[in-house]
Amino acid sequence: MAKEQQFVKNIADINEDFPQWYTDVVIKTELVDYGPVKGTMVIRPYGYAIWETIQTELNKRFKALGVKNAYFPMLIPESYLKREAEHVEGFAPEVALVTHAGGEKLAENLVIRPTSETIICEMYSKWLQSYRDLPIIINQWANVMRWEKTTRPFLRTSEFLWQEGHTVHATEDEARAEALAMLDCYEKFMNEVLAIPVFTGIKTEKEKFAGAVETYGLEAMMLDGKSLQAGTSHYLGQNFAKAFDMQFLDKDNTHKYAYSTSWGVSTRMIGAVVMAHGDQRGLSLPPAVAPIQVIVIPVAQFKEGVMENAQKLTEKLVGMGVRAELDARDASPGWKFNEWEMKGCPVRIEIGPRDIEAGKCVVSRRDNFEKFDLPLNELEKIPELLSTIQKNMLEKSRKIRDGKVVSAKTLKGIFDGVEGRNFVKAPWCGCRECEEKIKNDTAASARVITKDNAEGEVCAVCGKKAKHIVLFARAY
Amino acid sequence: MAKEQQFVKNIADINEDFPQWYTDVVIKTELVDYGPVKGTMVIRPYGYAIWETIQTELNKRFKALGVKNAYFPMLIPESYLKREAEHVEGFAPEVALVTHAGGEKLAENLVIRPTSETIICEMYSKWLQSYRDLPIIINQWANVMRWEKTTRPFLRTSEFLWQEGHTVHATEDEARAEALAMLDCYEKFMNEVLAIPVFTGIKTEKEKFAGAVETYGLEAMMLDGKSLQAGTSHYLGQNFAKAFDMQFLDKDNTHKYAYSTSWGVSTRMIGAVVMAHGDQRGLSLPPAVAPIQVIVIPVAQFKEGVMENAQKLTEKLVGMGVRAELDARDASPGWKFNEWEMKGCPVRIEIGPRDIEAGKCVVSRRDNFEKFDLPLNELEKIPELLSTIQKNMLEKSRKIRDGKVVSAKTLKGIFDGVEGRNFVKAPWCGCRECEEKIKNDTAASARVITKDNAEGEVCAVCGKKAKHIVLFARAY
Repeated sequence: MAKEQQFVKNIADINEDFPQWYTDVVIKTELVDYGPVKGTMVIRPYGYAIWETIQTELNKRFKALGVKNAYFPMLIPESYLKREAEHVEGFAPEVALVTHAGGEKLAENLVIRPTSETIICEMYSKWLQSYRDLPIIINQWANVMRWEKTTRPFLRTSEFLWQEGHTVHATEDEARAEALAMLDCYEKFMNEVLAIPVFTGIKTEKEKFAGAVETYGLEAMMLDGKSLQAGTSHYLGQNFAKAFDMQFLDKDNTHKYAYSTSWGVSTRMIGAVVMAHGDQRGLSLPPAVAPIQVIVIPVAQFKEGVMENAQKLTEKLVGMGVRAELDARDASPGWKFNEWEMKGCPVRIEIGPRDIEAGKCVVSRRDNFEKFDLPLNELEKIPELLSTIQKNMLEKSRKIRDGKVVSAKTLKGIFDGVEGRNFVKAPWCGCRECEEKIKNDTAASARVITKDNAEGEVCAVCGKKAKHIVLFARAY
Repeated sequence: MAKEQQFVKNIADINEDFPQWYTDVVIKTELVDYGPVKGTMVIRPYGYAIWETIQTELNKRFKALGVKNAYFPMLIPESYLKREAEHVEGFAPEVALVTHAGGEKLAENLVIRPTSETIICEMYSKWLQSYRDLPIIINQWANVMRWEKTTRPFLRTSEFLWQEGHTVHATEDEARAEALAMLDCYEKFMNEVLAIPVFTGIKTEKEKFAGAVETYGLEAMMLDGKSLQAGTSHYLGQNFAKAFDMQFLDKDNTHKYAYSTSWGVSTRMIGAVVMAHGDQRGLSLPPAVAPIQVIVIPVAQFKEGVMENAQKLTEKLVGMGVRAELDARDASPGWKFNEWEMKGCPVRIEIGPRDIEAGKCVVSRRDNFEKFDLPLNELEKIPELLSTIQKNMLEKSRKIRDGKVVSAKTLKGIFDGVEGRNFVKAPWCGCRECEEKIKNDTAASARVITKDNAEGEVCAVCGKKAKHIVLFARAY
């Protein structure tokens, strides 16, 4: 019994120490481990399987939007980074440098990509000749490196995995539309696959991507009321086109600079799934992203016929397209229940001698702990159940989130709001000083500029006419 | 017309200058481009799509063998490389070093992985406690870096993409069986997907992986009679287990060092496909690996009904699971024929007003240039045709190859054989000196030790008793 309780016991209290709860959960469920070099992570098979379902789902959606995948080199000449003024300022402090290779000092230092706008635009400028070559809509799945001082598995690591899309267009309108289309793609993906509602909107100047004209962000509320930036989409204007001479001969026979965008999501999203859906028992994974959607656990597994029936049941589910697995290990059902609960498997099916006699199995939901008997000839209800769970998890997240968005009119109001683990909507004049004062005094940053009407409102800091209603939150 | 001939014209003669033919083909078909840093490559969408089908096919086969994917950090402490004596000797000269990061000099230099045995074994030694944890069978898809002096797209680049499997076992027998099982998996994959026959066998001491007890190689013959090592599988014995203290508590309650293997294939395989199947017109892709299996080309595309029928035809094929695409660009059919021929699309379907009237389309095969009418209500013959082409391409490659394997008994015989663009089987005494003399005098290296009987044979170099019949070839 002691062993069967170990999981819950070893996880810190979710209400009292959320950061430690997070670390305990991601390590103990074997999603991830610490790498030998400070700030690096090993994505273990259970965590990587989540990443693979994310990749499959996004690739499907990207393909429908005309995106093609490619791969660009990881090493970028240091000089490239310097061509776009804001870009170098943003990324230079956190790059890793290759100075020696093949036993010799390099003539020019190379940067391990922190992001690939520079090298990709360099290639595009070579490929791009005429308006006929546009648009270019390419994505890459890659590892990137940003040397961060404080790191946490998935949320902030020196190396992480992501996808980065880079597109080029003939007109500003088309490029802006592309950035918004990808934002929409991400939002739907997060809703439908990760079961996480997000706030989307434009970032402030202070918070935007280094080199962008405008950055759109997707902000997800974690269970501790903090925000996690789950993805971004940037309208880059002609900034990189000018820095990398990305010109094309237009229909009117004149050379023009193109307009570009970039957009990305990363392994951070795995952290978001953990912190949006977990509970004291561990992970709770939305079926669409769960590596194993249904775990089948034989009860009294060494009794005649049990394992065979459990196996048959599993195969039937697999045949229906369900990611089902049989846990045939030599361990007690109780131990397995606890383990799969901790690992967040959406549905557990138990089947023992008495169930077999009665022609049924016992189904348990991870999202709400409901438990019910299911006749063995009604297994086709399981895919339906997975859809129900998926929807329920999104609804539940939305309800929690919507109950934790408050409005404030003053700096103190913002502080009280975020201190109470809320997102706070507050009016803002638009100036950098007021935004920084909020950050300094409340530890909350401007997440996105909302579309709410700021008419008649005054800035929570300086009292001058408000330009926007901004969503403030403490953030990962 | 001039434009329609441009493709063939711009590709070097395959018989007179095979290396230039290769470069022309991979660049002009937009499989790849040169990256800004010497020795790096950009894998363009058409090339990357081949890589994605390779990944999908291998993942399917790996899964059936119980392999799970994961991801390990790219940066390895330099000291790790030094723990296994042969390993450091083999890889130290070609590593890229990160010496600075986050604006500071690092306390210990970091190596960009040239391969990941060291860091993965470090993690395994942490995870491995008891025999119950064995076997560990994990693969990763990753980029690796080896600083090479002479580089060529896909064949040898400083950065390349690959998969590397790393397994740990309780016994020597099990580890050896695993290394052989993966060799077999690769051979079947190369036959069935890449349509490339391979010679498999053990590598000589000189040619084996740095740190392995035994390396098994897969050698494919290119059209110029040179060999391309298409993949390797290593039995590592306890070499890395001892270097990284990879021990486990066995059933008999004693601690034992584990046995490990590693195995990998890379983006090199794309180069192999080019050089095994291409011809003067460009690429010829096996259907199993072709990004587009059937290209549909409308003739007189602006005439009423043509585009609609071409579209319908394409959709029907897609519905049958065929990777079919409609080329609706505003260009002449002849230009499109040439382009898709150069790009190696296995099947071309033309459909014009007269075809529509006659209720048919015109089908052309890339592998043998056969052309025939197909009634529009017999499209289900296309998937069959793709299988036929796939088999035919393997058969054709096998015939070419089998006609170019000769035997020799002397050093001169080996030289004449490889000079005539053959693989040469020759007897060898087993000593390093003779192997090196062959390399120096003929530019051919020992590819694999064959299973042929060496009884009664004498070494082609020294005349002493032969230990093995070895397959020699000039190699990429």
